[in-house]
Amino acid sequence: MFRTIRASFRAFSTIGVVQSRKRNAWRYPAGFFLLGTGAAVWWTSKSVHADRRKQKINPSHFMALPITNVDKLENNPDDMRTRMELMIMRVQADFCRALEAEEFAGKRFTVDRWERNEGGGGITCVLQDGEVFEKAGVNISVVSGNLPPGAVQQMRSRGKKLSDGPLPFFAAGVSAVIHPRNPLVPTIHFNYRYFEVEDSTGEKQWWFGGGTDLTPYYLNEEDSVHFHKTLKGACDEHDATYYPRFKKWCDEYFHIPHRKECRGIGGIFFDDLDEPSQDDAFAFVSSCANSVIPSYLPLVRKHKNDAYGDPQRTWQLLRRGRYVEFNLIYDRGTKFGLHTPGARFESILMSLPLTARWEYMHEPKANSREGQLMEVLKNPRDWLKLEQKP
Amino acid sequence: MFRTIRASFRAFSTIGVVQSRKRNAWRYPAGFFLLGTGAAVWWTSKSVHADRRKQKINPSHFMALPITNVDKLENNPDDMRTRMELMIMRVQADFCRALEAEEFAGKRFTVDRWERNEGGGGITCVLQDGEVFEKAGVNISVVSGNLPPGAVQQMRSRGKKLSDGPLPFFAAGVSAVIHPRNPLVPTIHFNYRYFEVEDSTGEKQWWFGGGTDLTPYYLNEEDSVHFHKTLKGACDEHDATYYPRFKKWCDEYFHIPHRKECRGIGGIFFDDLDEPSQDDAFAFVSSCANSVIPSYLPLVRKHKNDAYGDPQRTWQLLRRGRYVEFNLIYDRGTKFGLHTPGARFESILMSLPLTARWEYMHEPKANSREGQLMEVLKNPRDWLKLEQKP
Repeated sequence: MFRTIRASFRAFSTIGVVQSRKRNAWRYPAGFFLLGTGAAVWWTSKSVHADRRKQKINPSHFMALPITNVDKLENNPDDMRTRMELMIMRVQADFCRALEAEEFAGKRFTVDRWERNEGGGGITCVLQDGEVFEKAGVNISVVSGNLPPGAVQQMRSRGKKLSDGPLPFFAAGVSAVIHPRNPLVPTIHFNYRYFEVEDSTGEKQWWFGGGTDLTPYYLNEEDSVHFHKTLKGACDEHDATYYPRFKKWCDEYFHIPHRKECRGIGGIFFDDLDEPSQDDAFAFVSSCANSVIPSYLPLVRKHKNDAYGDPQRTWQLLRRGRYVEFNLIYDRGTKFGLHTPGARFESILMSLPLTARWEYMHEPKANSREGQLMEVLKNPRDWLKLEQKP
Repeated sequence: MFRTIRASFRAFSTIGVVQSRKRNAWRYPAGFFLLGTGAAVWWTSKSVHADRRKQKINPSHFMALPITNVDKLENNPDDMRTRMELMIMRVQADFCRALEAEEFAGKRFTVDRWERNEGGGGITCVLQDGEVFEKAGVNISVVSGNLPPGAVQQMRSRGKKLSDGPLPFFAAGVSAVIHPRNPLVPTIHFNYRYFEVEDSTGEKQWWFGGGTDLTPYYLNEEDSVHFHKTLKGACDEHDATYYPRFKKWCDEYFHIPHRKECRGIGGIFFDDLDEPSQDDAFAFVSSCANSVIPSYLPLVRKHKNDAYGDPQRTWQLLRRGRYVEFNLIYDRGTKFGLHTPGARFESILMSLPLTARWEYMHEPKANSREGQLMEVLKNPRDWLKLEQKP
């Protein structure tokens, strides 16, 4: 159903560095350098005029070559498909490099660039068994084809008006789940995506969706406020109503009904965003994606050396069991992905932790640190005290 | 939604033993002994005539008091509800005691008897963190009420004709999942259930369902043949077509579509069994339930002292990750249970292992022992070579 090429990131990034160093010394002709591992690097000089219409793409910063042919991307700089693909490629690379920089012994992401028979493909970057990150997955996908019936049904149930017959679609998105080893460092998840569907009349619908949310194992009020404040900052640049609306949506979405608890302390979540304009919505989604590193990396740096023992580790694994429950039973993306023909399940399930635990009838004491977290998961907080403000 | 009483099994079984010892010395009057833990034990002498119509019920062998009032059970000995409840109570107790006998240091099941506001209840027995069994759950439930809409839809999609309006139902079943610590000992799952639905016209439909299946971490051909042969023996007593039909159904049901592999080496699985008669179907289901111990316990005894190391343990945890995937994404019982109002999720999720693991893109070498298992999971075998026979 798909073809995977494992690109040695080390080799790839080394080439990238060599190129950057030589950038001012001499110029490559526009073209491809086929690496031994099968990944191709394409590089050329920046044009003198920084006009988006004429700007050449430099994929050496990316984790692998874009999914869409670089010529095509360069020839369609204003198309939202191009802008989204380049944005998610950049976000993926920035985030992977930021995480790698936190590792103590230079552990790197492995990079799998894969193609989908039905159209498009993706780049799955996973760092497994690191010292700081037990399992970190950062994925981009750029896919197209005809909407599978399950997706049509799901979209219609959300109120989308879709005609009968084949519905050509395009989807591009970045998603990541980071499971750190230290139970004092929270898990983060984010996902930003762009969707286009063409009707039988040729009419095109488009929308954006996404969100960022945090799943701590131990509650740290200061961290929680920092996280939410950073997301609010990204939202407020665009619309003052976004943060409160999308914060609430996040609490409602990342909820485990059978346990009557949230997966984590929330963040923001939204879908079907198609206003005020495509440019504005893209700018908003870009701001959100850009806020991931400042929202999360300070928490990693602050806690990655914190001391912990077996009881904290066991609690972390139990909470990860809940994470697995949410992702496999309720998460729309996972369910939809696994039921889509030709889906690359390894890229969908990279969100699962390396290890998880289920104990029958486990319930922490109310006044314990574990119990304090549970209290917040059962009753989501207004972290920025917005409702108390005039 | 439900009320749980944790009965100390140790206390309960001690009482049982005391009673058995004294059985010939003196007689309790018919009545209840309320234990300090809240569980009640009811005992009386056997009637002289072993007629089912007159036989008194001795619940001291059970893990807790039956869900249905004992008087009611005694007054309706021929009702299939009574016969099923007593059968699953006995199977639960026999299986729990057989497993406890395999533990080295006397680890016992904890017993939770719970009641459901909507009608009925259950008994959940869990042995966690034993030396031989890392997590073993054996559950019975006897529930009634009106069918939730999701269940109606599911049953209609299976071809059941159900009228509109409220549909009173009764369901009684036993289910168990045993996750041993030693990776050389396989995991077993079984579930036997009886269902009744009453139409608005007062017409009653009934059927049985269930199965037993094995999930080894390492393939042992002799064990696999023993397991399937024992199940075939139970089937053949009733209908020579049962084993081949239900073996195939099992391979099809316990399948993980996104991985294109089976959960284990199969066994038997069937549903909607309502022929040739209620008595015959009950006798068949009883034979199946009775075959669990002889199919499985010999494998536990054979391998519980086998030597293993970290690589085998890691492989076991990875396979358990697949078990979690099947149960949370595909298993009809789990999905239906978690979406049913008032369901006791702890009893549903007791099937999950204590620990599980997910590695990105893990694939064992084809010629390794792990690869040999994968070959069988990808291509289910005709263990008893039935298709080669004349």
